[in-house]
Amino acid sequence: MHELFLIGIGTGNPDHITFQAAEAIRGADLILIPRKGADKADLADLRRQICARVMGEDASDRIAEFDLPVRDASGDYRAGVLDWHDAIAGVWTDTVAAASPAPRKVALLIWGDPSLYDSSLRIAARLSPAPKITVIPGITAIQALCAAHRIPLNEIGAPVVITTGRQIRDHGWPEGADTVVAMLDGGCAFQTLAPEGIRIWWGAYLGMAEEIVLSGQLAEAGPEILTTREEARARHGWLMDIYLMRRSQKRG
Amino acid sequence: MHELFLIGIGTGNPDHITFQAAEAIRGADLILIPRKGADKADLADLRRQICARVMGEDASDRIAEFDLPVRDASGDYRAGVLDWHDAIAGVWTDTVAAASPAPRKVALLIWGDPSLYDSSLRIAARLSPAPKITVIPGITAIQALCAAHRIPLNEIGAPVVITTGRQIRDHGWPEGADTVVAMLDGGCAFQTLAPEGIRIWWGAYLGMAEEIVLSGQLAEAGPEILTTREEARARHGWLMDIYLMRRSQKRG
Ligand SMILES: C[S@@+](CC[C@H](N)C(=O)[O-])C[C@H]1O[C@@H](n2cnc3c(N)ncnc32)[C@H](O)[C@@H]1O
Ligand SMILES: C[S@@+](CC[C@H](N)C(=O)[O-])C[C@H]1O[C@@H](n2cnc3c(N)ncnc32)[C@H](O)[C@@H]1O
Repeated sequence: MHELFLIGIGTGNPDHITFQAAEAIRGADLILIPRKGADKADLADLRRQICARVMGEDASDRIAEFDLPVRDASGDYRAGVLDWHDAIAGVWTDTVAAASPAPRKVALLIWGDPSLYDSSLRIAARLSPAPKITVIPGITAIQALCAAHRIPLNEIGAPVVITTGRQIRDHGWPEGADTVVAMLDGGCAFQTLAPEGIRIWWGAYLGMAEEIVLSGQLAEAGPEILTTREEARARHGWLMDIYLMRRSQKRG
Repeated sequence: MHELFLIGIGTGNPDHITFQAAEAIRGADLILIPRKGADKADLADLRRQICARVMGEDASDRIAEFDLPVRDASGDYRAGVLDWHDAIAGVWTDTVAAASPAPRKVALLIWGDPSLYDSSLRIAARLSPAPKITVIPGITAIQALCAAHRIPLNEIGAPVVITTGRQIRDHGWPEGADTVVAMLDGGCAFQTLAPEGIRIWWGAYLGMAEEIVLSGQLAEAGPEILTTREEARARHGWLMDIYLMRRSQKRG
C-alpha cells in the first residue's frame, strides 16, 4: 500500500457524497470495508451501496471486507483504545497483503468526516511502512443535524463547543459557550443538566430513511426524546443520535 | 418564491460539492448569486463555475445576480448586522420579483455549510410570505483545514471550541477545551496568547489553487504565519484563512 485515502462519505444519505469523494473511490485499487456488525447492519450496506453507485459494475472486485477487532473494555479506557487501534492497523495491513494484484491505492470509507470523533487517522499513523495519506472531507452529523432542523450552529459571532455525552455527564455544561453539540452520547447526558433556559434540537438516523428529529425546551423535549429513543432502538435494533443545546445568553 | 434552498457548496474546491447539492442546483428555477465584490473576485466566479458544470449549457438563463448591500459599520455591531440582514432580504425579494417566468424554487449557493458563521438562515427568516426552506449541508472550512493538514479535529473523546478571532482577542483561550478553531479572524488573534505549549495548524485559500498551509509551535509558526499572510494578501488582493490551535493537556 503506497497511498491511503480516508474518504468521508457523509452520515447516512448516499447523496452526501462529494464529487471529490466519488473520484477518489473510483481511483482506488482496493476499498476496505468493515464487515457488518450485528447491530449496525445499515452502515456496512450503505458503504457497499455507495461503491456500487460510484464505481459501477466491477465494484465488488475492488472491495475487501475485514472483521473489526473487538475493543477490550475491561481495563483503562485510553489504554484499551490504543491497543484496539494497533489491532485495527494490523487487520488493515493483513487485508491489503491478501489482495491480489497488490493494490497501490487503498481507500477507507469514513462515516461523516475523517476528522470528527473518528480514529482512522490515528490508526493510519501506526502503519509501517507509512503510506502517503490523503484525507477527503465529508458531511458530518453536526451539519446533518443543523440542516434537518434548519438552524445555524452558532449564534452571531459566538462560540460553539463540540463535545461528548461523557464530558457533559462528568463536567456539566461546558464553560465558555452558550451552544453545545453532544455526540457519542449513549446515556442521554442532557438529563444531568438543570433544564431551565435550555433549548434542545435532537436528531437520530440523520440523512437516512429512519430519520427522526425533535426540538423544544429541554424540560419538555428531554423526556420526549428519552421515549422516542427507546421506541426507535426497539424498532430498528440500533440507534445513532446527536443533539445541539443552546442556553439563553446571560452575558452581554 | 415558494421554496428556498440554501445549498452548501464547500470552501473553494468545486469538487467539494455533494450529489445532493448538485441535484438541488439542477432542480432550481432561479439561482441568486451575489455580484463579485472588488476584493473577492474568485468567490463569485466559483459559484458561476459550479452552476455551469452542474446545470450544463443553460446555466446562465437561470442565474440572477444581485448587489450585496453594504453593512453600516459605524454604530452598534449587532444593530448594524440586523439592519444589513433586513436589507439583504429586501434585495433577494426584489431580485426574485424581477425574474420571469416567476420562479417557484429559488436557490442560494452558500460558501461552506449554511449553518456555520453564515447569515443566510437569519436573512431567510425575514422573508414574507415565508417560503419553505431546505438546507443542504456543504464541506466547511474547518473540515478543509483538518483534511489539508491530515489531522483530527478533536483529541480522543475530548471537546473542541469553534470561535472567532474577536472572541479570542477579547476573552483569551476559551475555557473548557484544549483544541480551538478560529474563524473570521482578520487580526491574527493568536498573537494575543502566551504561545508556550500551543501548536497551531493554519490554512489560507483552502481547497483553491492558492492554498497555503503552515503548522508548528505557535512561538515559531506564529510570526511565519504573519509574514505569509501579508505576502499572500499582497499577491492575491484578498485573503481567507482559518486555524486550529491545541495546547498540551494539563488535565488528567
Ligand atoms: C464515532 S462518531 C463519528 C462522527 C462522524 N465522523 C461524523 O463526522 O459525523 C459517531 C457519532 O456521530 C453521531 N452521528 C453520526 N452519524 C449520525 C446520524 N446519521 N444521525 C445521528 N447522529 C449521528 C452520533 O452522535 C454518533 O455517536
Ligand atoms: C463567514 S465565515 C463562513 C464559513 C463557511 N460557512 C464555512 O462553512 O466554512 C468565513 C470564514 O470561514 C473561513 N474560511 C472559509 N473558507 C475558507 C477557505 N477556503 N480557506 C480558509 N478559510 C476559509 C475563514 O475563517 C473565514 O473568515
